[in-house]
Amino acid sequence: MAGPETPKLMVDVIVPSEEGHVLLIRRDTDPYEGYCALPGGFVEVGETVEAAAAREAEEETGLKVEIERLVGVYSDPDRDPRGHNVSCAFLARAQEGELSAATDAAEASFLDSSEVELAFDHEKIIADALAS
Amino acid sequence: MAGPETPKLMVDVIVPSEEGHVLLIRRDTDPYEGYCALPGGFVEVGETVEAAAAREAEEETGLKVEIERLVGVYSDPDRDPRGHNVSCAFLARAQEGELSAATDAAEASFLDSSEVELAFDHEKIIADALAS
Repeated sequence: MAGPETPKLMVDVIVPSEEGHVLLIRRDTDPYEGYCALPGGFVEVGETVEAAAAREAEEETGLKVEIERLVGVYSDPDRDPRGHNVSCAFLARAQEGELSAATDAAEASFLDSSEVELAFDHEKIIADALAS
Repeated sequence: MAGPETPKLMVDVIVPSEEGHVLLIRRDTDPYEGYCALPGGFVEVGETVEAAAAREAEEETGLKVEIERLVGVYSDPDRDPRGHNVSCAFLARAQEGELSAATDAAEASFLDSSEVELAFDHEKIIADALAS
């Protein structure tokens, strides 16, 4: 594609439950293998960030979600040890489907995020999403 | 850089004046040569989106700005004829410096954005920034 090299574009999705838990996957690959993380991944060329967020949530957890709003853009160059990956974080609501791990997620469930070890800057993203 | 190809990451900056005008540059290159546009450009690897927004505003207009808040992320694949470029738009406040065109901007001034032809989806970005 034309244009200079830029950071890679990613999405993360915060899906709260009525009990205040958050939809998390347990990572089965490096980095942060074994840690919990928000569903998310790289945006594809030709796809909006909202579509990428819904696609990644469904691929990784089996749940269809409705995107509610943008929480923020997380762009600290050191936030991801794989390289400079900038994440657009979206708050979403679970619609339908059955919870099941898929693709690169080992396990998906609604968990109390304060009781698990979270990968990347996902503790901050969750705090921002639930605070506003 | 490792990882799959993603859309390119850009920033645009909305700097309103007290009179309700908006800081705009007149483009002297394709696409949209001769149209007005928000100051903005590609994010560099290793740079936060907020730093990129402040850098582009100063490079293109001579003004130092303080970033106030994220307005939105604009990711329609057809928004930029050069390719799939996703823009993080920031509202900012002018701090100091003298208005002057630089680098790829032919002319920089505070204009009534409803009275000029705007490039890309900048009419929508300005409306979103000033509405909220």
